[in-house]
Amino acid sequence: MTLSNIAAILEIEFSAEDIEITGMNTLKNAMPNEISFVSNSKYIKDIESSNAAAIIVSASLIKHVPENCVALVVENSYWSMATLSKYFAPVIEDNNLPLAQIGEGSIVSSKAEIANGAKIGKNCTILAHVYIGAEAVVGDNTIIYPSVTVYRDCKIGNDCIIHANTVIGADGFGFATNHLGEHRKIYQNGNAVIEDDVEIGSNVSIDRAVFGTTLIKKGVRIDNLIQIGHNCEIGEYSVMVAQSGLAGSTKLGRNVVMGGQSATAGHIEIAPFTTFAARSGVTKSIKESGLTFGGFPLMEQKTWLKLQVKIARLLK
Amino acid sequence: MTLSNIAAILEIEFSAEDIEITGMNTLKNAMPNEISFVSNSKYIKDIESSNAAAIIVSASLIKHVPENCVALVVENSYWSMATLSKYFAPVIEDNNLPLAQIGEGSIVSSKAEIANGAKIGKNCTILAHVYIGAEAVVGDNTIIYPSVTVYRDCKIGNDCIIHANTVIGADGFGFATNHLGEHRKIYQNGNAVIEDDVEIGSNVSIDRAVFGTTLIKKGVRIDNLIQIGHNCEIGEYSVMVAQSGLAGSTKLGRNVVMGGQSATAGHIEIAPFTTFAARSGVTKSIKESGLTFGGFPLMEQKTWLKLQVKIARLLK
Amino acid sequence: MTLSNIAAILEIEFSAEDIEITGMNTLKNAMPNEISFVSNSKYIKDIESSNAAAIIVSASLIKHVPENCVALVVENSYWSMATLSKYFAPVIEDNNLPLAQIGEGSIVSSKAEIANGAKIGKNCTILAHVYIGAEAVVGDNTIIYPSVTVYRDCKIGNDCIIHANTVIGADGFGFATNHLGEHRKIYQNGNAVIEDDVEIGSNVSIDRAVFGTTLIKKGVRIDNLIQIGHNCEIGEYSVMVAQSGLAGSTKLGRNVVMGGQSATAGHIEIAPFTTFAARSGVTKSIKESGLTFGGFPLMEQKTWLKLQVKIARLLK
Repeated sequence: MTLSNIAAILEIEFSAEDIEITGMNTLKNAMPNEISFVSNSKYIKDIESSNAAAIIVSASLIKHVPENCVALVVENSYWSMATLSKYFAPVIEDNNLPLAQIGEGSIVSSKAEIANGAKIGKNCTILAHVYIGAEAVVGDNTIIYPSVTVYRDCKIGNDCIIHANTVIGADGFGFATNHLGEHRKIYQNGNAVIEDDVEIGSNVSIDRAVFGTTLIKKGVRIDNLIQIGHNCEIGEYSVMVAQSGLAGSTKLGRNVVMGGQSATAGHIEIAPFTTFAARSGVTKSIKESGLTFGGFPLMEQKTWLKLQVKIARLLK
Repeated sequence: MTLSNIAAILEIEFSAEDIEITGMNTLKNAMPNEISFVSNSKYIKDIESSNAAAIIVSASLIKHVPENCVALVVENSYWSMATLSKYFAPVIEDNNLPLAQIGEGSIVSSKAEIANGAKIGKNCTILAHVYIGAEAVVGDNTIIYPSVTVYRDCKIGNDCIIHANTVIGADGFGFATNHLGEHRKIYQNGNAVIEDDVEIGSNVSIDRAVFGTTLIKKGVRIDNLIQIGHNCEIGEYSVMVAQSGLAGSTKLGRNVVMGGQSATAGHIEIAPFTTFAARSGVTKSIKESGLTFGGFPLMEQKTWLKLQVKIARLLK
Repeated sequence: MTLSNIAAILEIEFSAEDIEITGMNTLKNAMPNEISFVSNSKYIKDIESSNAAAIIVSASLIKHVPENCVALVVENSYWSMATLSKYFAPVIEDNNLPLAQIGEGSIVSSKAEIANGAKIGKNCTILAHVYIGAEAVVGDNTIIYPSVTVYRDCKIGNDCIIHANTVIGADGFGFATNHLGEHRKIYQNGNAVIEDDVEIGSNVSIDRAVFGTTLIKKGVRIDNLIQIGHNCEIGEYSVMVAQSGLAGSTKLGRNVVMGGQSATAGHIEIAPFTTFAARSGVTKSIKESGLTFGGFPLMEQKTWLKLQVKIARLLK
C-alpha cells in the first residue's frame, strides 16, 4: 500500500513523495518502509528517533516528527491507526498458499484441519478437531490435544504439549474509542510464539501481538484457564497456576511463579525468580529478584500475613 | 401440552377447564397460553397482574392467584417448575428442519457443522470445527473462528468476530434443590442474542436465558475467559476485560467497563458509563452514571485507594 | 518393565532380585507389583507400611524402607519419579484396540471422534467435534455438547450433561524442578470419573489424577470456566459457581457450595454442607458442617461482614 493510499483511507490531504508502505509498527520498532503512530504523549521521546517512513500524529505533535519522516496529521491518531490496521491484516486462510507440510513420523487426525501454508514437524501427534492456521509452524515431537486452535502465523516449538481447547494467537484485546464511546478494532497483525519444551493446560487463551510477538519461552509451564494478553513475554521455566492472568505487554523474567487466580496489570516487568502467592494483584514492576509477594495491593507475602493479623484485631 | 397433561406430570389433581399450554415464562412475561410459577415470596406482587393461563404455587399463595387463572398447587413450586421445564425443552437437533441456508459469498469450512434450520448470512467466514445449532442465525460479514459453539435458537448479528472456543447459548446454571439436597435441572429454554459489531474473545461462556434472552448489545467488546450468566443484558459499547464475570440477570448500561477479574452478583443494574477497576466485586446496583469503583466490598475507586493507605498504617 | 530396566532409566546400580513392575503409585496405595517414591519427608511414616515392590528414595531415608522392599537410592527422588513416570504413560490412541462400541439408541455425530477402545452407552447424544479418548466410557442417556474433550481412560456416568468446550481428564499440573530451575513433566497416569446425574458447564477444566482418580460424585452441578485440579474429589450434590477453582487433591464433602470466583488450596478437606461465598479463598480444611464462610483469609461470612464495617471506619 502506498502512502497516498493511506492518506486517502484516513481522509487527509497528501502532497509528499509517494512510497510503498509494507506494515505498521511501534515508533521504536518501525522499519524505514513502515508506518507508525503516536497514541499517547508519553511516547513523544520515541518520535524523534523513529525510523518509520511516516507517523500518524495529532497537529500538536507535528513539531517532533523528524525531517525525513512524513507526518500524517489527524484528529484522533489512535482511532486513525485502528482504521488503518484493517488494511494490513492478512487474510485468515489463503487457498493460494501451498498445501500444509507434515513431517516424517507425525500422526495428524483426519478430523484436524491444517490450513494451507502450515508446517508440522516430525513425530508430532495432532489429534482430532485441532486447527493449525495459515503459515503456522509446529516443531518436532509436539503433542496437540483435541480442539486446540492455533491461529495463523503462530509458532509452536519442539517437545511441547498443548492440552485440549486451548487457543494460541487469537486477537489481542485492542480497540480505539471515539468521543461517542464507539469502538473500532485494532487489527492484531503480530503473532504468538511458544518455544521448546513448553506445556500448556486446557482452556488457556494466549493472544497474538498487535505488532511483533507474544512470546512464551523455553520450559514454561502453564496450567488451565489462564489469560495471557497480547505482547506479553514469559521467561524460561516460569510457572502460571490455574486461572491466573497477565494483561498486555507484561514481561515475566525466568522462573517467575504466578499463583492461582493471581494477575498482573499491563506494561510491567517482573524480575526473575519472583513468586506471587495465589490471588496476588500485581500493578507495579518488580526489580529485585527472588522475593515472594501476595495481596492486592501487592506487598511482600510476609508483610501481607502480618497485616492480616492486624486487620483481624479490628474486630476486638 | 395441555393443562391436564401438566397436572399429571406434577402429580396433582386437576378439574379446571383443559387448555393448550405453549410454554413456561415468568409471571411478568407469561402470555395467556403460557404457564408460570412463584418461586419466591418477593414475586407475590406479580401474581395478581400476571397474564399466565396457570400458575404453579404453594397452598399459602393460592389466594393471590387471579380468578381467570388456574392455580396448580404443589408443595415445592420451584422443584415442580424444574420438573415441568424438561417437557418444554426443544430437541437439540431436528432432522425434519430444512437444511441450513448459507448466504452468498460466505465461506463455511467443510469441517464446521451447521445444523438443520440454521441460517448464515452473506460474506461470513465460518472456520473448521465451528458448531451452529438448530435454528440459530448468523448475520452478514461475521467471522467465527474454530471450535466456537453456538447453541440452538441463538442469534449473532452482522459484522461480529467470535474468537476460537467460545460458547454462546449453553444452558444457564439453573436447578431446584429439594429437602434432601438433591438437584433437579431447570431447562433453559430461552436463547442468547449478540447484536451487530460485537467482538468476543476466546474461551468465553455466554449462557442462554432460562426464559427470554441473554442480550449482548451493539458494539460490545468482550475479552477472553469471561462468564456471562443467563438473562444478563450488556449495554451498547460496554467492555469486559479478561476473566471478569456477570452472574445471572444482571444488566449493564452502555459503555460500562468491567476490569480484569472483576465480577458482579446477579439481578443488579449498573448505570451507563460506570467503570469497575480490576478485581471489583459488585454486589449492589449502581444508579449514578460515570463513576469509577473498585474493591470488594465495592466503593469508589478513590476511596479504595485512600483506604489501602489507612490499612497499611496498621502495620506501624 | 522390570526393576532392572527402571534402575537403568534412573542411572543407578541394581543388584537385587529382578521383578516385573506394572505401575507407579503413592506409598499408601502401591500394590506389591508397583513402584513408589518419597518426595517429601512428611510421608516418612508411610514408607514402613507401604506394600510397594520398590521405593525411590534419597540416601538419608533408606533406613525407613522395609526389608522386603527394594530401595532405589537417587539424589532427587521427585525428579527421578518424574523421569520414570513417562515410561508408564499409556499411548494416547491405539489402533490395536477394538473399534468403539456405541449403545442402542445413541446418536453420535459423524463429526465427533470416538477413539478405539471407547464405549458409549444407550440413548446418548454426542454432538459434532466431541472427542472421546481411548478406553473412555460414557454411560446411558448422557448428552455431550460440541467440542467437549474426554481424555483416555476417563468415565462419564448416566444421565449427565456436559456443555460445550469442556475438557475432562487433561493432565494435572505436575512437574519436578531441579536445582537449575528446569522442570520435568510428571506424567499423569490416573483418570477422571464423573458419576451419574452430573451437569458440567462450558469451558470447564477437570484434570485427570497423577495416580488414581479425580472424582466428581453423583448429582454435582458445575458452572462455567471452573478449574478442578488433579486428584480432587467432589462430594454428592456439591455446587461450584462460575470461575471457581479447586487446587489438587482437595476433597469437598456433599452439598458444599463454592461461590463465584472462590478457590481452595490443595490437599484440604471440606465438611459437608459448607458454603463458601463468592471470592472466598480457602486455605485450610473445614471440619464442622453447615457453616458459611467468606473472605481471604477465610473467616465465617458473618465475621467477614462485621470486619468490613470495622475496616471502613479506618477512613473516618
